Amino acid sequence: MADAHSLEMLIQSLKRLPGVGVKSAQRMAFHLLQHDREGALTLARALQAAASDVRHCERCHTFTEAQICATCLDPQRDHSKLCVVETPADQSALERTGAYRGLYFVLMGKLSPLDGVGPNDLGLKKLFERACDGVVQEVILATNFTAEGEATAHVISEALKARGLRLTRLARGVPAGSELEYVDLGTIAHALVDRR
Amino acid sequence: MADAHSLEMLIQSLKRLPGVGVKSAQRMAFHLLQHDREGALTLARALQAAASDVRHCERCHTFTEAQICATCLDPQRDHSKLCVVETPADQSALERTGAYRGLYFVLMGKLSPLDGVGPNDLGLKKLFERACDGVVQEVILATNFTAEGEATAHVISEALKARGLRLTRLARGVPAGSELEYVDLGTIAHALVDRR
Repeated sequence: MADAHSLEMLIQSLKRLPGVGVKSAQRMAFHLLQHDREGALTLARALQAAASDVRHCERCHTFTEAQICATCLDPQRDHSKLCVVETPADQSALERTGAYRGLYFVLMGKLSPLDGVGPNDLGLKKLFERACDGVVQEVILATNFTAEGEATAHVISEALKARGLRLTRLARGVPAGSELEYVDLGTIAHALVDRR
Repeated sequence: MADAHSLEMLIQSLKRLPGVGVKSAQRMAFHLLQHDREGALTLARALQAAASDVRHCERCHTFTEAQICATCLDPQRDHSKLCVVETPADQSALERTGAYRGLYFVLMGKLSPLDGVGPNDLGLKKLFERACDGVVQEVILATNFTAEGEATAHVISEALKARGLRLTRLARGVPAGSELEYVDLGTIAHALVDRR
């Protein structure tokens, strides 16, 4: 491998992917070069296309290739509901449930002071403008139930509370299909408090 | 995400990497687009360069950009020793030990009849020609100590046995720094048999 400069470069570049260390990067590079050069070229083209075409929707911040994404433009959706999520992956999980027909605001992250992510980095100002545009009646906080996600939801709800909007949070409780014996105690306690 | 076609393409292409499922591919794509577009373009260029420049050394089959790799051309190395390994990663592990100054033959795989990999796919014919070129005195079998690796070593040693070459296999034994209590029994049994 000593004199394969471009192989070394490839391994270094693959290491920039999240969750990929030097061993995985080596394995990926060897696999592509040995068994799937077409895949390597396809991936190269996909990377270039995505890096040049994908941008953020001006209304909801999700990834899109248009100025405003199809979800925001859809007249069939309930524009009075605004669901705040952390990432496009979370948005996509909610969409797949088929249980929500309102709009989204994608934070593209979460408040994380330790990593230097403050309210300005998340575009919270834009969220507040959007929430107060007179059309939105309810803001559904669907950030993750982690420490940072909860803190993000708290900051947003504190800021919006005074403006007469209905503020809701995804229900916490026992996951579907689970047995109480194996559910953690914090979840059971929440499910008890929020019983209906 | 509904209307970001190139994002979807990127996720599909990343899924072709070994060990990457749909969740990891999503996470990688989001990371690159949100935090590291420069990394995405660097990776794209590295993939293209490697796919076009990297080929196999004509003598040892390892990855190289030249016709014959630097290791094979190095006059300082002991050309009478030929170490047979499965992958360039194994070769690189042996090189890092600094304990071997001979040459290599990289199989780029192992015999695996269940996956349809037979002797012809591994270029064993080329290995046999190489081993019988009159310069090589000793063939060191350094395939992995797995079922397929052992079978590969067995097939090679059976074929070369008749040709008056010295055939050796990496020693099996207790790994450096390990406590006997935690070493598996097969390894201890081998270490007993091969004691010196």
